[in-house]
Amino acid sequence: MPHVTLNMVARKAGVSKTTASLVLNGKADRLNIASGTQERVKQIAKELNYQPGHFNPGRLNGKTGIIGVVASQFSSYPNNLWFNHVVTILQLNKYVAIPILLREETRTLNNIVAADGYLLLDEKAVSLFEKVKNSDTKAICCGFQTEKEDFKCIHPNWRDMVNEMVAALYQYNRKAIGLVTKDSQKISTQTIINTYRENYCDRFDIQENICYISENQYTSEAIAKACMSLVDKGVNGVIFESGDMVQKALLERNIRQLLTTRKVLFACYGERPEFNVFEQDGLLIIPENIEAMAQETVNNVLKKTT
Amino acid sequence: MPHVTLNMVARKAGVSKTTASLVLNGKADRLNIASGTQERVKQIAKELNYQPGHFNPGRLNGKTGIIGVVASQFSSYPNNLWFNHVVTILQLNKYVAIPILLREETRTLNNIVAADGYLLLDEKAVSLFEKVKNSDTKAICCGFQTEKEDFKCIHPNWRDMVNEMVAALYQYNRKAIGLVTKDSQKISTQTIINTYRENYCDRFDIQENICYISENQYTSEAIAKACMSLVDKGVNGVIFESGDMVQKALLERNIRQLLTTRKVLFACYGERPEFNVFEQDGLLIIPENIEAMAQETVNNVLKKTT
Repeated sequence: MPHVTLNMVARKAGVSKTTASLVLNGKADRLNIASGTQERVKQIAKELNYQPGHFNPGRLNGKTGIIGVVASQFSSYPNNLWFNHVVTILQLNKYVAIPILLREETRTLNNIVAADGYLLLDEKAVSLFEKVKNSDTKAICCGFQTEKEDFKCIHPNWRDMVNEMVAALYQYNRKAIGLVTKDSQKISTQTIINTYRENYCDRFDIQENICYISENQYTSEAIAKACMSLVDKGVNGVIFESGDMVQKALLERNIRQLLTTRKVLFACYGERPEFNVFEQDGLLIIPENIEAMAQETVNNVLKKTT
Repeated sequence: MPHVTLNMVARKAGVSKTTASLVLNGKADRLNIASGTQERVKQIAKELNYQPGHFNPGRLNGKTGIIGVVASQFSSYPNNLWFNHVVTILQLNKYVAIPILLREETRTLNNIVAADGYLLLDEKAVSLFEKVKNSDTKAICCGFQTEKEDFKCIHPNWRDMVNEMVAALYQYNRKAIGLVTKDSQKISTQTIINTYRENYCDRFDIQENICYISENQYTSEAIAKACMSLVDKGVNGVIFESGDMVQKALLERNIRQLLTTRKVLFACYGERPEFNVFEQDGLLIIPENIEAMAQETVNNVLKKTT
């Protein structure tokens, strides 16, 4: 079955494309189009099962009907998952997503397409995007908290995430819980550390076991070593600050063996394809619920633009 | 530094946006714009370091400047990698990519955006796309061979891939090579089977060791069992028809142990994030070279449209 276009409806009804459009958009009465013509167009549209195209900037009163989705890359987790959900939700809202890649190495700033709003998928893209945004540009960060001002951010609730990780480890009777985290002042990291202290150490009167990884030694070896030092101290459940950190740790064979023997359980938030393989072996993954966050983000960006 | 717009140039030069545009697009002489005005506009554009926007459908002589990228999802490998490369290359060619999700369950056919050409990322999207395409729609399949006619396909050279896998296994002295493959009539599968027979079994006079997985038992258990049956027959190098198959096999712990003990080496083509963890343990991965294929695909789709 070929796609039914407005043109096909108009031709079969013997009217112009404009007339057909006016009738099907409910504007015919205002313009004194004969009621017989109106009926005929509607009948034929029904017969042909005509579905008006979704992307219809005209309907938007001067808006573009476009939302720019900005990232330094679209192929890595969680950007790819965010992108997929955002495109789905925008399509359902009759908007078109336009992917915009911003990278230092290319003169990509000229590629910013005019849009009603922008969704930013990663921190790398934020500083480049800042150079081109105006004061009235609607821009929302998806899944992370930038330190730049003027950007609304929809991100996971890190406090809840830590509580869920502690609960998951408890469920498997792993009550000696340590934390491996970056040595960072970022809000997300600080929230995770504070929640671990307050809702686990203080609450159960347990001594804290935190290993800090500095930014300049963020390697799989360093992370694996930090993890092992916790295990040597008797820790049997390890919370990692991020999925990225677990992924790096798992590159080390001794860490993979910890999981296989189930001597220790790991917990992190954020799904990744790599984790499917290990989930059954003792990697507890708290989902980020990107789909719900994407819905919230799209609601936010469309609020101002419709 | 804020992004310099055409408007800013026009305002500073004291001319209209139209005049500024005509001057900077080299059309001023034809329209008798005073040479003093021309000089002033050019000088100010230079001072402000004005970079004209890339997305400029007007320049394209009636073309949209848009390439639709069609998929049933953008979040899984290799679709996400294809998408990333394609967006990059299209941006460099001053085209805009518009992602189009086509899925059975939603009435997505109305979401097809008019474009100069379409790139299809997966087979699932092809049959839905077929319903909306016209005879003159330029559409190219990225990375796979569809059985539908009328679609040009840019895909890996499976023959070369098998030869590279055999060579990689030989390099590690694994000369008893078996093949795990789907029981399928698809061109890709048949090419892989034939190459294994001709360039390995026949050439070295070795008996073939093929395990076929039928479509309706395509589970990780079945694949793991097939793999184990080959190992029991003395196979020490296993070629898998696809990365997807290896990923499923690795969900089984006994298969992961085969790798860790390096009793057997696995080979497949196509990178996946899951494989990073196992690569050092004896998983030989022949890259698909998606970036080069994406370049070829974009060259092809733009050929007819520029």
